[in-house]
Amino acid sequence: MATELSFGDQQRAQELLEAIQFFSQKGWSPATSTNYSLRLETQGEFLISRSGVDKSRFQLSDLIVIAQTGQVATRSQGAGIKSSAETEIHTAIYARFPDAGCVLHTHSVLGTWLSQKYVKAWEIKFQDWEILKGLKGVETHLGTVVLPIVNNHQVMKHILNEMESNWPNSPHGFLIAGHGLYTWGTTVAEAKRHIETFEFLFELQRLGA
Amino acid sequence: MATELSFGDQQRAQELLEAIQFFSQKGWSPATSTNYSLRLETQGEFLISRSGVDKSRFQLSDLIVIAQTGQVATRSQGAGIKSSAETEIHTAIYARFPDAGCVLHTHSVLGTWLSQKYVKAWEIKFQDWEILKGLKGVETHLGTVVLPIVNNHQVMKHILNEMESNWPNSPHGFLIAGHGLYTWGTTVAEAKRHIETFEFLFELQRLGA
Amino acid sequence: MATELSFGDQQRAQELLEAIQFFSQKGWSPATSTNYSLRLETQGEFLISRSGVDKSRFQLSDLIVIAQTGQVATRSQGAGIKSSAETEIHTAIYARFPDAGCVLHTHSVLGTWLSQKYVKAWEIKFQDWEILKGLKGVETHLGTVVLPIVNNHQVMKHILNEMESNWPNSPHGFLIAGHGLYTWGTTVAEAKRHIETFEFLFELQRLGA
Amino acid sequence: MATELSFGDQQRAQELLEAIQFFSQKGWSPATSTNYSLRLETQGEFLISRSGVDKSRFQLSDLIVIAQTGQVATRSQGAGIKSSAETEIHTAIYARFPDAGCVLHTHSVLGTWLSQKYVKAWEIKFQDWEILKGLKGVETHLGTVVLPIVNNHQVMKHILNEMESNWPNSPHGFLIAGHGLYTWGTTVAEAKRHIETFEFLFELQRLGA
Repeated sequence: MATELSFGDQQRAQELLEAIQFFSQKGWSPATSTNYSLRLETQGEFLISRSGVDKSRFQLSDLIVIAQTGQVATRSQGAGIKSSAETEIHTAIYARFPDAGCVLHTHSVLGTWLSQKYVKAWEIKFQDWEILKGLKGVETHLGTVVLPIVNNHQVMKHILNEMESNWPNSPHGFLIAGHGLYTWGTTVAEAKRHIETFEFLFELQRLGA
Repeated sequence: MATELSFGDQQRAQELLEAIQFFSQKGWSPATSTNYSLRLETQGEFLISRSGVDKSRFQLSDLIVIAQTGQVATRSQGAGIKSSAETEIHTAIYARFPDAGCVLHTHSVLGTWLSQKYVKAWEIKFQDWEILKGLKGVETHLGTVVLPIVNNHQVMKHILNEMESNWPNSPHGFLIAGHGLYTWGTTVAEAKRHIETFEFLFELQRLGA
Repeated sequence: MATELSFGDQQRAQELLEAIQFFSQKGWSPATSTNYSLRLETQGEFLISRSGVDKSRFQLSDLIVIAQTGQVATRSQGAGIKSSAETEIHTAIYARFPDAGCVLHTHSVLGTWLSQKYVKAWEIKFQDWEILKGLKGVETHLGTVVLPIVNNHQVMKHILNEMESNWPNSPHGFLIAGHGLYTWGTTVAEAKRHIETFEFLFELQRLGA
Repeated sequence: MATELSFGDQQRAQELLEAIQFFSQKGWSPATSTNYSLRLETQGEFLISRSGVDKSRFQLSDLIVIAQTGQVATRSQGAGIKSSAETEIHTAIYARFPDAGCVLHTHSVLGTWLSQKYVKAWEIKFQDWEILKGLKGVETHLGTVVLPIVNNHQVMKHILNEMESNWPNSPHGFLIAGHGLYTWGTTVAEAKRHIETFEFLFELQRLGA
């Protein structure tokens, strides 16, 4: 894979790999769950984790190129190679947020559990925590950060519709009920910081007031 | 050991070793508990972890061959070498499920605790979690997955009898009360995915509704 | 950086780096939170972690020199290099405690959670635990150790004022509400021991009486 | 140190070091707490961890020889080298249990917390868990294992007196209130297995019935 990418994209792919390994170490990507992507320098292309890989054994070659068509690019095709079933969610996020350069989806116990616990409220609210400043544009612990929750569906289109109706306030991410967290950032580092920030907030939320 | 095996079996033994090391890192194989096996290419033989080994120090040479007779094969015999006391459970699973290529038994705190907590219900039911799709053949989070529980006995035959009466619905695994989880898969990767899926479900179950 | 320091300071910087890596492994420095410093042999100078660095990737070159003026020393200046926003807190601690050679600030889930839970009491009290002897000068588990809590502010001056009014009893550290723990020691080893001691006490406090 | 020991003792010292590193990884030896020893082949001598060492940085050279006199042996003396303040507890265990070849003392959050919670009952009882078979001589999960608890004192003699009065039933170990776990075994491996077994039981005890 790596030889097909610009030097900048190769470096970001390496950074993404290290973030994936970090999440696996933390236990936020059990079994073959979770998926991750990068916007490439070539307009309309991005790199995404392929489907069905054990994240504790994930390698650079498990990142594949999605072409402008939304399909696996010719140069990444091969036997048994499929992009994640949730590729459409990544694509929708990149289309909606032009600044997004990296989209990360983790599946931690607490994110999964809280997403069901609060699904009827459609959101979780966080405030008064210094860690909120880990989210892009948040300059004080005093404000309230809202993390929307959408229902889980086997048909991606339904998740996408729910995402649209749950994005009035430029969220930093969202939860899919019973399924985990999506967040993004301009860079891999920023998106990873958002994952760590939300996971920390989930632990605080679990402990309660 | 390795020189006695076909190239394919050697590769799968290495994969099993890495899974054992992963479980040890997670804390799912305390003290000398737990055991693991592989069906070999030679009809009726399989590879099993030997008894009494600290899983944080487990090596390839701690996997021994069980012959068609159910006894340690001549080429694996040696001073102090015994197969696990639970070898019969592995054998019974391979006999009952012709597709099973790998059987894994972990002993996590939560699996052990839940197995006692739900022993009178004879089962734990899971539903509405995306992670259920980590189990072979489960295509949606909407269905209900049942994990049977059998009583613990010092006499293996009693456990085997209970297993028979608790397998009406083709389970993906089962718990032995106060003792931990058994699961299996066609490949090492699939069986490992089942362990990770159940352990994740145990954490959700503990957190409650 | 390292070439600008005396041999003794280089060794202590290396020791500080290892402590930072230890805290990151423990999950006590999520996202880009936390900051760390050392008093240098040159009067009035110290070394501090620069702002905005992912602590799981922290390197020796991310420690920068603060001159007597309280500003980044000329030899540490560079594009994008800022000292932590909380540099003033470190400076205030060194001024108040002439014995302090190292100041550490971690941001664990439990420290953060407890700091809000007890903020109205202005303190947490610990007693009857052997681990209290991990704090400098504490020779028995029988006494009571008080950890003061100050409110969180975006304006450092307000935190500093609160620190002054909360320091009647020579604390070993303090919590900032919703923000984490500050502690210090004569050496890096002693300050690290204080962090581990308080984090252990936080876990006991969470479990309750 | 190592050059002063027989080949067998050197190997056991290395095994002890690996156990110490394992406990540190698990978080069972915070700050400079905990201590560990081995009975040497030379009658009346043993090897013990020296006082005040950060267990995450512990090295083979931090194990020192205690002579028959109960003092640090001449060949292990040096500036700043002291044996643990709890050396007398180790000595008492070796005197009382002639089979003991290794004594381990960990200081986990749960062991510490439970030791205070149950101190008025003077013991914790465990039963119905398969993991009990991790304790030497326990052949079934059905029996009851009793772990005595003694009060904590700064004066070792008082702890020793309490140990005597709490040892009617040949325990596998004991807790010191607010202070942690002592256990032992014929070999390092057996003593380590006892630590892992008790720590697992502590987690089950915390989760409750």
